[in-house]
Amino acid sequence: MQFAQIPMQWVGPLLLRGDIEDRVEAPMATYETPLWPSVNRGARVTEKAGGIRITLIDARMSRSITLQAVNAHEAHQAAQAILEQQDRLQAVVSQSSRFARLIEIHPKIIGNLLILRLEFTTGDASGHNMVTHAADQLIPWLLQHHPQLRYVSISGNFCTDKKVSAVNALHGRGKNVVAETWLPEKLVRRYLKTTPEKLVELHIKKNLLGSIAAGSLMSANAHAANMLLAFYLATGQDAANIVEGSQCIDHAEVHDNGDLYFSTTLPNLIVGTVGNGKGLDFVQENLARMGCTDPDALPGENARRLAGICAATVLCGELSLLAAQTNPGELMAAHLKLERKGS
Amino acid sequence: MQFAQIPMQWVGPLLLRGDIEDRVEAPMATYETPLWPSVNRGARVTEKAGGIRITLIDARMSRSITLQAVNAHEAHQAAQAILEQQDRLQAVVSQSSRFARLIEIHPKIIGNLLILRLEFTTGDASGHNMVTHAADQLIPWLLQHHPQLRYVSISGNFCTDKKVSAVNALHGRGKNVVAETWLPEKLVRRYLKTTPEKLVELHIKKNLLGSIAAGSLMSANAHAANMLLAFYLATGQDAANIVEGSQCIDHAEVHDNGDLYFSTTLPNLIVGTVGNGKGLDFVQENLARMGCTDPDALPGENARRLAGICAATVLCGELSLLAAQTNPGELMAAHLKLERKGS
Amino acid sequence: MQFAQIPMQWVGPLLLRGDIEDRVEAPMATYETPLWPSVNRGARVTEKAGGIRITLIDARMSRSITLQAVNAHEAHQAAQAILEQQDRLQAVVSQSSRFARLIEIHPKIIGNLLILRLEFTTGDASGHNMVTHAADQLIPWLLQHHPQLRYVSISGNFCTDKKVSAVNALHGRGKNVVAETWLPEKLVRRYLKTTPEKLVELHIKKNLLGSIAAGSLMSANAHAANMLLAFYLATGQDAANIVEGSQCIDHAEVHDNGDLYFSTTLPNLIVGTVGNGKGLDFVQENLARMGCTDPDALPGENARRLAGICAATVLCGELSLLAAQTNPGELMAAHLKLERKGS
Amino acid sequence: MQFAQIPMQWVGPLLLRGDIEDRVEAPMATYETPLWPSVNRGARVTEKAGGIRITLIDARMSRSITLQAVNAHEAHQAAQAILEQQDRLQAVVSQSSRFARLIEIHPKIIGNLLILRLEFTTGDASGHNMVTHAADQLIPWLLQHHPQLRYVSISGNFCTDKKVSAVNALHGRGKNVVAETWLPEKLVRRYLKTTPEKLVELHIKKNLLGSIAAGSLMSANAHAANMLLAFYLATGQDAANIVEGSQCIDHAEVHDNGDLYFSTTLPNLIVGTVGNGKGLDFVQENLARMGCTDPDALPGENARRLAGICAATVLCGELSLLAAQTNPGELMAAHLKLERKGS
Repeated sequence: MQFAQIPMQWVGPLLLRGDIEDRVEAPMATYETPLWPSVNRGARVTEKAGGIRITLIDARMSRSITLQAVNAHEAHQAAQAILEQQDRLQAVVSQSSRFARLIEIHPKIIGNLLILRLEFTTGDASGHNMVTHAADQLIPWLLQHHPQLRYVSISGNFCTDKKVSAVNALHGRGKNVVAETWLPEKLVRRYLKTTPEKLVELHIKKNLLGSIAAGSLMSANAHAANMLLAFYLATGQDAANIVEGSQCIDHAEVHDNGDLYFSTTLPNLIVGTVGNGKGLDFVQENLARMGCTDPDALPGENARRLAGICAATVLCGELSLLAAQTNPGELMAAHLKLERKGS
Repeated sequence: MQFAQIPMQWVGPLLLRGDIEDRVEAPMATYETPLWPSVNRGARVTEKAGGIRITLIDARMSRSITLQAVNAHEAHQAAQAILEQQDRLQAVVSQSSRFARLIEIHPKIIGNLLILRLEFTTGDASGHNMVTHAADQLIPWLLQHHPQLRYVSISGNFCTDKKVSAVNALHGRGKNVVAETWLPEKLVRRYLKTTPEKLVELHIKKNLLGSIAAGSLMSANAHAANMLLAFYLATGQDAANIVEGSQCIDHAEVHDNGDLYFSTTLPNLIVGTVGNGKGLDFVQENLARMGCTDPDALPGENARRLAGICAATVLCGELSLLAAQTNPGELMAAHLKLERKGS
Repeated sequence: MQFAQIPMQWVGPLLLRGDIEDRVEAPMATYETPLWPSVNRGARVTEKAGGIRITLIDARMSRSITLQAVNAHEAHQAAQAILEQQDRLQAVVSQSSRFARLIEIHPKIIGNLLILRLEFTTGDASGHNMVTHAADQLIPWLLQHHPQLRYVSISGNFCTDKKVSAVNALHGRGKNVVAETWLPEKLVRRYLKTTPEKLVELHIKKNLLGSIAAGSLMSANAHAANMLLAFYLATGQDAANIVEGSQCIDHAEVHDNGDLYFSTTLPNLIVGTVGNGKGLDFVQENLARMGCTDPDALPGENARRLAGICAATVLCGELSLLAAQTNPGELMAAHLKLERKGS
Repeated sequence: MQFAQIPMQWVGPLLLRGDIEDRVEAPMATYETPLWPSVNRGARVTEKAGGIRITLIDARMSRSITLQAVNAHEAHQAAQAILEQQDRLQAVVSQSSRFARLIEIHPKIIGNLLILRLEFTTGDASGHNMVTHAADQLIPWLLQHHPQLRYVSISGNFCTDKKVSAVNALHGRGKNVVAETWLPEKLVRRYLKTTPEKLVELHIKKNLLGSIAAGSLMSANAHAANMLLAFYLATGQDAANIVEGSQCIDHAEVHDNGDLYFSTTLPNLIVGTVGNGKGLDFVQENLARMGCTDPDALPGENARRLAGICAATVLCGELSLLAAQTNPGELMAAHLKLERKGS
């Protein structure tokens, strides 16, 4: 077996509070090696300031299947009936999976098409295969019990996996996590070489107005995709999920006392601690070092911990790059150093 | 130095026509190992049918800078003047880069803010650092020659790097490449186990209608991000660029003679053969094996070749997954095999 | 009082089936007078073919309020508690409105912000004022019972009223209606001067691919806004709601028997038969002539009927324009006639 | 002829500076009668503060046509050739229109499809018919000179007319206008009953963050569609163009001296002073009273003046509603008054 060898380093320690209370390091695998010192700077300033507060809002994984009726009326009637049958659908799912639990169904009707978005909790797995498998089981059952429906697709792009969308943030896909920090002005000046006011102004003009001007969708951040990619690769995740994962929203403001409030909200953070990609030795080691392979943890607890660490890593990178961009001189110097080595 | 070891295999051969005429294999590094046989199936059927036609539409890299005036009038006047000064800006850029050539400037005015999207050709580099460096050089020049402007940000999210947007596809970022193939019904049946009609119907209901229903943006594909990620990792690309790279559009129809026409249009394919990440041994070997390190090639030619191979790889994966999803039984079986090994 | 006098005509009759079984005319007020014959053509061909089937999927009206906590954890806990208090919120709403019924609450957390999307049924009113009034009543109650929250806005743009969004189609705002028709090829040729195949091809390349290429969002139609505007003005609706109303999706295909299936799905159709704008004499007359002022109808029934007629009107206009655009000669002639009169 | 009678009032005076220097009133026709006092409040405070500065950035009207080649290569070659033929295309257009001038062509290739976005200046007309007529003339010429292309549609939804999109703001459609004002804190308190800080905070959390959370696209405002609709109806515009017109962006900040800077940027303001709808008596009177029917004006000057007045009207309405929403008590009282009269 051949391998692509992606340079990997540990960043942190990250001081975590809230839904996770710990001091942990995080691995990042990336060709963009300047990411490491950048995230480290964010880790350092947040640690000095009392840490990063993690709040886990939600966790689910989805698969949508597309069916077709002769008309919208039949599609709608089937949808209403299926919503009433959630328990029976769960029974079908349970036959093949110990962990998949169907928690919500969102039907969408387009003409005579019925798209069913099936949403599951999936324990510690990110759940791609689990929900596909569940959908596989459910389709024959649905077609049998609703003969007015015919099969169109096991994946109707209303899931939606690894594609830009609005549906994921609104109905939820993966972990929905918020990372927040409160930084005294003094620490902002010392470690980030900027001020709360300058950072907030840049956030508004770049992350909010700039993203709107660019025609972004449910996305307002500086470079979340960079941190997500590196963290996903280092922890055996399906890194193509950074497409939706990076649709995340920073929010910053200066408090009355002059402190900086900074947060990153990641509604589509698809990570797991078991399943595809997790069997590799270095992945197991990385997960273990972060405390995400606790055999005594409740189902889903290891994955939630991993999501929290990931969100904190993103926040650190966001803070650090935004700080740098408030200050043209700093970036020029950093880039000059890069240029000598690279492109 | 530690490394994340991502399993890597070669797929193909891909038979290429049009702007690239060759028969090449492509490397893919991924934890989603079922991708390899899936892409191979697409490679086989397109090879039998005469290959994949590659058309390179455009190539550029962008960086946007945000400046501010006292009002929109001053911002607009500065923008008009700067558009007239493109040659002088190019002269500034030339002092620090042999390759960066400023080809277009798109100003955007939001109130008193002036966002300048600077677009460059960057030779064989993907050009992230080259355009940032160029912007670094240009900012002092712009502030000096347009004193009514003040600095806001070296990156205004109107570039936009590694973030969902509309601006990239409309103004161009990276290579804009089309991959197309024409498949006789007989080959579709034999290799893809489906029919042209079924595949086109699924494409319409999933990639087009399903994506629209999900609130996708400038994106209509099945799983382009998967192939992009694997190809990017294997060739030393900045794989966070799959966020915009995966905003790509499939188009399929059944010809009067019953053949399947299938294409993938990738307007934001950010790849290079030199620069960050390209210095690693396995990357050099991979690029060389694909013929993308030709020292006698004209500037940009190696990178364009790489983009063409990448687009063909995406097309193969799209074809294969769509074919599988027309056929529920096939997917179920494939997933069962996966489940035994994984999640 | 002065008035803008918008030319108005009746189109139809529209033959309706499904959730409305009737034969009715519809009023359209517009400066774009070619709309009338265009919609009439669609009405004629659908009548000959057995009519337009109307399916009402959902009805609700929303208002979002933005609150803020000290951190995401407090915001999340408040959201969870409020979801449990839906009955108590309904009791507050009931004190001031006979009709508003709170049917669903969607909380959204961005950092320390809590946006609550409150969704109500509103009887026969479109419900703008009813839900604003309900929100007015609820805010003091929420602030009193959740003292960790402070007021930010009575409208957080997550409602969202008269603005492009994804949230409306996914969570529902206004009536969600599908209009469908099945047209034999012979009728398509005779009345629409085209073929099912040509119309479907145009729909795919224009409404689906063209909209995706343009960066549309949850929208795939030819000119739904035209019909909506004219119908809204003629029936006293708040016509600025065509912004979200026109985010609607056509779906067309050729059946095995050669018939054309054509549908329009309007998930954000905000119309009412009582409330602002409905008191004007001509509006009352128009509503009465359509049978939408039945005093014996159940609450909401008149408004649902109105929504169905509106959806049928949109479908007729869509069919007719698409047919015309399959045929360049026809449009040129029609435009020449226009040109003689206008611009 | 029947008419829908939409209540109409004059608001203002609006004190205009910059590209228009005048003091004018503006007509608004709407069923939402509270709009009039709301806009009047914005007019009053901006007048006291020295007025509203208008900057006209651009003006153009577009039509896209869709053509098809056998493959992307042929489509691309045709596109390149057509870009070189702009003068010859202009000669064709000139034969049938005195005013239409082709200023830019944006080709878009999706597989084997070639979408040509043709952009024109159109004098004082909004230009819908003018550009359609020009496209009608150009299609036969294009098909004759590029026989590898076949006709698909005279309108490819890449124009895009009356539909949500990203393309309009990025390539331009209609007038691109900025309206700005600078309000001393004292006037904000006296007339708007709020503070600059509160208004800016609300703008950020509602217009920016709220819109992003809702999945808006290139849109960040409170209720621009309301003012656009009323102004469009009163001036004979094609009011369905509020769909794209309302995709506009507010920007607000508190200056160091405590003043409020507030602006609205409208990149898709489609208005004209001649053409469809302008022949009605009340429309002529309204246009004349605003000074937009000057026979001695240069082509396009009357329409640009109209666009400026329209933008100022939008700004006034935005300011006033945002101010009201910073202050829950005020809205409740206003709504109670409404409720007594309405829904």
